[in-house]
Order: sequence, then structure tokens, then C-alpha cells
Amino acid sequence: MTKAKFSKKQLPRKKDDLSAWFLAVVQAAELADYAPVRGTMVFRPWGYALWERVQESLDKLIKGMGVENTYFPLFIPLSLLEKEKSHVEGFAPELAVVTHGGGEKLAEPLVVRPTSETIMYAMFAKWIKSWRDLPLKINQWCNVVRWEKRTYPFLRTTEFLWQEGHTAHATHEEAEEQVREALAVYEKEFAEYFALAGITGIKSEAEKFAGGLKTTCFEVLLPDGRALQAATSHDLGQNFARAFEVKFQNQVGEEEFVWQTSWGLSTRALGGMLMIHGDDQGLFLPPALAPLQVIIVPIFSEGEKSVIEEYLRQLVRELEAELRVRVDDRSSHTPGWKFNYWEVKGVPLRLEIGRREVEEEKVLLFRRDTLEKEYLPRRGIKEQLKTILGDQMQQARERSRRFIEKQTREVNDYQEFKEIMAEERGLIRAFWCGNPDCEAQIKTETKATTRCRPFALEKEKGHCIYCRQPAQERWYFAQAY
Amino acid sequence: MTKAKFSKKQLPRKKDDLSAWFLAVVQAAELADYAPVRGTMVFRPWGYALWERVQESLDKLIKGMGVENTYFPLFIPLSLLEKEKSHVEGFAPELAVVTHGGGEKLAEPLVVRPTSETIMYAMFAKWIKSWRDLPLKINQWCNVVRWEKRTYPFLRTTEFLWQEGHTAHATHEEAEEQVREALAVYEKEFAEYFALAGITGIKSEAEKFAGGLKTTCFEVLLPDGRALQAATSHDLGQNFARAFEVKFQNQVGEEEFVWQTSWGLSTRALGGMLMIHGDDQGLFLPPALAPLQVIIVPIFSEGEKSVIEEYLRQLVRELEAELRVRVDDRSSHTPGWKFNYWEVKGVPLRLEIGRREVEEEKVLLFRRDTLEKEYLPRRGIKEQLKTILGDQMQQARERSRRFIEKQTREVNDYQEFKEIMAEERGLIRAFWCGNPDCEAQIKTETKATTRCRPFALEKEKGHCIYCRQPAQERWYFAQAY
Repeated sequence: MTKAKFSKKQLPRKKDDLSAWFLAVVQAAELADYAPVRGTMVFRPWGYALWERVQESLDKLIKGMGVENTYFPLFIPLSLLEKEKSHVEGFAPELAVVTHGGGEKLAEPLVVRPTSETIMYAMFAKWIKSWRDLPLKINQWCNVVRWEKRTYPFLRTTEFLWQEGHTAHATHEEAEEQVREALAVYEKEFAEYFALAGITGIKSEAEKFAGGLKTTCFEVLLPDGRALQAATSHDLGQNFARAFEVKFQNQVGEEEFVWQTSWGLSTRALGGMLMIHGDDQGLFLPPALAPLQVIIVPIFSEGEKSVIEEYLRQLVRELEAELRVRVDDRSSHTPGWKFNYWEVKGVPLRLEIGRREVEEEKVLLFRRDTLEKEYLPRRGIKEQLKTILGDQMQQARERSRRFIEKQTREVNDYQEFKEIMAEERGLIRAFWCGNPDCEAQIKTETKATTRCRPFALEKEKGHCIYCRQPAQERWYFAQAY
Repeated sequence: MTKAKFSKKQLPRKKDDLSAWFLAVVQAAELADYAPVRGTMVFRPWGYALWERVQESLDKLIKGMGVENTYFPLFIPLSLLEKEKSHVEGFAPELAVVTHGGGEKLAEPLVVRPTSETIMYAMFAKWIKSWRDLPLKINQWCNVVRWEKRTYPFLRTTEFLWQEGHTAHATHEEAEEQVREALAVYEKEFAEYFALAGITGIKSEAEKFAGGLKTTCFEVLLPDGRALQAATSHDLGQNFARAFEVKFQNQVGEEEFVWQTSWGLSTRALGGMLMIHGDDQGLFLPPALAPLQVIIVPIFSEGEKSVIEEYLRQLVRELEAELRVRVDDRSSHTPGWKFNYWEVKGVPLRLEIGRREVEEEKVLLFRRDTLEKEYLPRRGIKEQLKTILGDQMQQARERSRRFIEKQTREVNDYQEFKEIMAEERGLIRAFWCGNPDCEAQIKTETKATTRCRPFALEKEKGHCIYCRQPAQERWYFAQAY
């Protein structure tokens, strides 16, 4: 029998050192591995299967908005990227550049896409002529490259996978509606698949997308009290339309610039989910995203084999109609090793089946989130498991919601603000006057940035947490991952 | 009403100029467009939807072989690529190279993956320790870059999309079985989704994969008589295992190198399919890959609207349970314009529904492949259409099979060989002694290369078509795309 490579004892405690715990879990659960290029990672089957689940679920929601998938080239001529001034300024420090192709130096350097606005909108200008061509709504699933200084698996890698949606509309109102609709799709995806609560709102000028008009976001709170931008939806106004001359003839024959949006969700969101739901035993995968929902481990001596196999066959046949289920019948490993292996990998439910379970027509269930075992009758097992999986989803989402609630403080005193950011961090709701200098100073002194201003914000009377000038809006502040 | 942009009359005749016809169809059917980087293209929604259908169908077949999906980095350090000597020699002329990242010159240039053997097997060396870790079977769907001199939409683009499967095994027999199994999966995909017949066999040393031991292939015949390599499956032997030190401890405790395979199918295969099935009216999409199988065009005057809409609602509800169907109810375009539009795009079936169809409880069917119209009773419509779609698949496949048969000639005289290659081209079955010099001379003099040696080849006695030395094997020759 092989040695238990996946002993829980080798994992650092999550509370003691979140970063070390996550790095160890990523390896132990065979989610990903470091690749031979600095800052990149390999998605191993278990990690990639999670992304496939995200693609499958989110793609349906995106198509539900009348958006169609496309694929645009990886390489963007530098001159194209430079057309929208603040866009290129925002991305310039992170670019990877191809200078040679086919053994020759290129006449113009090519940038490996950090995002695809520029190359897409160069084509929009060609495709859009009339109001009849609007709205144009497309999406692509692809890899992008941003040359990050400090990298970390899933959360910040030089290359990552994402979807980027891009739309063009005849009016600003319609574009604004699309921005909202895309963010609502992300909220739904996070709630129903990631089992995650988060905060939504509007970004400050300093934190918005480079080249856009307004950025809205969905952010989650990591266990160490830092906020993670999990998805964004941008109102691009007409900035790119002007730079790329994306014009249309309206219904009365006049030329107008289109109104645009873009919105994206990346593999970084997976990282946040894994970090939030995991525990000292390894991962816990929300059932809706788990590549496997039920792992079955048979336990038998040689003579019992055929009886137990027949029981398993019928059990699997019943479950696989609606659940993602597998029997781990490898003879090379002990049941104990298998328990460990699938616990670290975060499979929500485990069934143990031995002679006793067969004789008494029951199953022994292990619930990965509560770590509790209980016997269930074999009869009606599928419906029972579905109920428990639903309960796991709901409880995981609820835990993340309570954590945000608990870690969100309303603060009016800058000294207190500083102390919180120096210790337990979390989200702070505080008045900010809107002056970018205050925002910049707060960042320098506390590492906290404005995360967003909630959408449904009632105007109050208060004073800026930094400069004490009158202020009417309470913003979310946090240290960002 | 807008002008019919998609007039069939604008298409060159396929027979007169295949290349001009295809370029025009790609644009008219909104499959793809030229991007602002030389040799790249944009997959527009209609073109990308085809690739999604390929992904969906082929991914199932691949997973059916026990293969799991992964994702490896886009960038490969040049030193890693250089580890397998003939591999890097084969790919060197086609590499795109990243020399700068994050504003700085990189210490080591990074190659944009032309294929992923080297970066994957560097990881295999880390993951594989024991016979228990074998077989290792993975696949990835991704973009790759090969700096081609002359490019052409779908068939040869600087960047293309593909899947690449990679496996490692304990024995050569097992690896050989995997090579066969992957090729069988491609044959199934081509037959059941692309509706394409082709030839299969083993590549010559000159034509095999750079760094591999043996390459097997599936090739189709384009309408201009050139052969297109549509998918390949390679036996890599232990070449890469030695270069990357991918070793395992066998069951008796000895260290051995693994035996490896790799196999891929790219968007190029889509290009071949589109070119083969299309006609002077535009595309014909095989129903199994068509993003839409049935387009419904309503024809009515204002007063008839509600009756017809109710008829359509029920019709769609019935069909969409099993077919990909859409109603084109845009009021901005005439029915005639819509007929044209969907014919160019190659939707297999069109239903026209007007007052008369509603009153007489029937539908008017237009079949894109035969260009014939007929009335069908409304009752049992779904089963009728399914039968016709199945018939279209079978007939398309049969046409491509007959074309290959007709265009395959057994030739024993080099003068005749040259004449055929100078005129109608097609496949030639001819004896070849196996000497690479003869193969090279034939290529220089006729542009024809060996395409493959059929698997089930009975040894015959003959003489090499070029040098007249004794030869025992008849090879397929053709000009390659």
C-alpha cells in the first residue's frame, strides 16, 4: 500500500497562516502546480474541472442575455492598444511583448492580450454600420497575460483564464442596463454555483477600469480580511467608440458613436472560493461546482466482493442520473487513504459501503462540510443526498454572508480605521469626501483602498474619515488582495 | 428594408475558383474576418459556434477514453523547447517569441506554444513516480501559435484553436493502443459530426511529427484535389521521456522511461469541412455540427400576425426539445433576404410558414443540400425533420466518400503521376521504395508528398514510382494543402 501522501497533518492550520495553508492545499488536492515560467501555473485535472463547471454554468447565463461567443486573436499590435490613452497607460506596466516571429524581428511589436477591448473594437468599427446592427453582444472564453510582479496560485498569475463580454448599444441607457444585467448574472453565478455572498457597488475613479467610464464590481472577503475583486462590469461610455470610430447611422440617418460595456470573471474568482470554503482538512467544494459530488468507497474482504459490487452497481445507476458520482475501487490504496484523498480534494459527500451496509440496506454517509457521519436508508437515497447537497450549498453561502456581516464595521474615526486595518482588517464602511488625495493617503497609511460605493446608498450627512470635510457617501474600504 | 448583403450572385463559382469562393463565403456567412495582425483571424459567432459544437462532441469522446482536461501555460522557456533536438528543429522556423515582460527585457526568451509536449512533459517528470501513477491521460483545449508564411482563413492561420491530448504509459504496447484509440475517436468525430470520409494511415519519416516515433493521421480530400491533414495521433516512443527524464518505478522496483503519445485536432479541420460541403449558394453545414438545424421564416401580412405567431410558438416548442431551432422574426428584413442569409450560412433546413400553411396544417420545407422544397404535414413534424436531418448527414458523408473514391488513382508510371499532379491532382496510390530521396524528388518535381501508408496494407511486389527499385508498399501521394 502506498504511503498517504495527502495526510491532513501536513497541512498548516488555516487560521494560523492562510497563505501557507492555501499553497499546501493547492498541491495536496492536486488542483494546480507551479510551471517552469515564473508566475504561471498548471491547472491539473481537479483544478481545471472546477473551471469547466464555471464555464458550463456561466456560459448558459451569458447566452441567456442574448450574447454570442466569439474568438479574437491573442496578439494585439502595440499601435492599436495605444489608441485609447488611459487604457494603455493602465496596462503598460503589465504587458508581455512579442518582438520576433518566424525567425525575424517584427516591424511592429505585438502585445499578448491583457484584455481585448482594443482588438475587438477595431473590428466593431468594421461590422457596425446601422442601428440595425445594434446591440452587438459578444463574449469570449480565453487566456490573458498580465505581467504581475508578485504572483500567487489562482489569485494572481501571469497568465489566467477568463471570459470577457463586450457589447455595443445605440443609447447610454441601454448600455447601463447591460452593465447591471451582467453584474446580476455574476451575482447569480456566485450565489448558485460558488455559494458565495459578496458586496456590490461602484468603483472610485482611481480604482475603475482603465479607459472606462464607470466600473461596477462584485467583491468577496477572504478569510484574512482582505477583499478580492471577483468580477467586474464596466460602463465604457463612448471612450473606446471615439478612439476606434465605432459609429452607426441612427433611425433618422445621423451618425452617432456607440455606447459600450465590457465585463469579466476569471480563474481568480475560483481562488477566492477555494480559500473561503476550505478548512483545516483541505478543500470543501460547493456541490454545484464540485466535479464530483459523491465519492463512494467500498470496504470489503475478498469473499464479500461480488455482493458489494452488485450493491454498488445499482447504487451508482440510481445516483448518476442526477448526481456526479464515482466509485473509488482502486485496489492499490486502502479505504483510509481514499478517505483522506477525497477529503482534501473537497468532495462534498462520501458514502462508505461494506458488508454491514449491504445486509442492512443502508449507506454510511460522511459530510465533508460538517465532518459528521450518519447512516441513511438505501431506499430513496438519491432524494436524500440531493437534499443534503442543497443544504450544503445554502449553509456555505450563509457562512460567507455571516462572515462579511461580522467583518464589516462602520467607522467614523481615522485612528480606529488605522487600528482595524493594522490588525484584523475586514471591510470598513466610512465617509469619504470623494477627493482622490484622501483616498491615496489612506492607501499609503493603511494599505486600505476604496472597494466600492454601494448602489442603493442613502445620502447621509457626515465627515470624510480622512480630511473631516463634509461628506455624504459611506464607501467600503478594505485592503485588496 | 436593408439591401441583401448576402446575394448569392456575388459568390464566385466554387468550381471556377475554390480559393476565391471560400474567401467570399467566409465573409458572406459571417464565419470569420481578418484581424489587424497578419495571418490571424477573428472567429465571429457563426464560426465559433461551429467550434463549440466540435468541442462539445469531441470532448465527450475524449473523456470516454478516460482522459481528463487540464490547462498548461502559453509560454515555454526556449531552453525547455530545446531539450528534444528534432522537436525544436521542426518548430524553430515557426516560433513567436516574447522577449519583454512588465517593461523589462526577459533573462530568457519565452516561446508562445506551437504545441505543448515540452512544457507538459517537464511536469510529467514531477508527477510520475511509480507504475501506480500510470497511465496518465490528459488533454487541453487551447490556442497555439505557428508563424506561417502564407496564411488562409481556417486552413492555415498564425494562431489557431485545437485540442491536444497527451498520455504516458508503462509499456509501448499500451501507448500504441492509445494512438489507435485516439485516431478511432477522430474517425468517429469526422464521420458522425463532420459528415466526412477520409483516409487513415502512417506517415513517412519525412512527414511525421518532429520528435515523435511514428505519426498516424486522418486526411480529407479538398475539392481542388489537395489533401488536408485533418487530425493526427503520434506514437512518441520514449524520445521525450528520455529528454525530460520522465521515469517510473515498475512493479518489480526498476526504473523505466514512460512511453508517450500525443494527438490533436484543430480549427483547420473545420476549414476542410466547410470547403468540402459548401456549394455555389454558400455553406452547407452537416446537421450534427450546425449551430442551428432548422430556421423558421414566417411570412404574413399585419392582420395574420397573431394566428401565425401562435402556430410558430407551438411548432418551436415541439421542435426545440430535440433540435436546434430558431424563428427569424426580425421585422427589419424581408423573407427573401432571410432566405438568402440563412442559405449562405448553411442551415440544413428552412421552414416557411404563412397563412396557407397554418390553415392547411402543414409546413413548407426547404432542404439546403438538395435545394428542394416540399410540403410536410404539421402532424409528426419533429420526427419527419429528424429523419431528413439524418438523411442529410448520411448523404453528405457519402458524397465525400465517393469523391475520394473517384479521385483516387492507382498509378505505376511516373509520367502519368506527373500529369495527374499537374492537372486534376487528387490521391495517387503508388509504390514507393521508402528512400527519402525519391520522396523528396517527387515533391520537388510534382509538389506531391507521401500522405500516408494505409494500415491494412497487403505486401505486393512492385517497383518504386520514382527510382524503379523493387518496392512492396503502395503509399498515398497527394499535394498537401
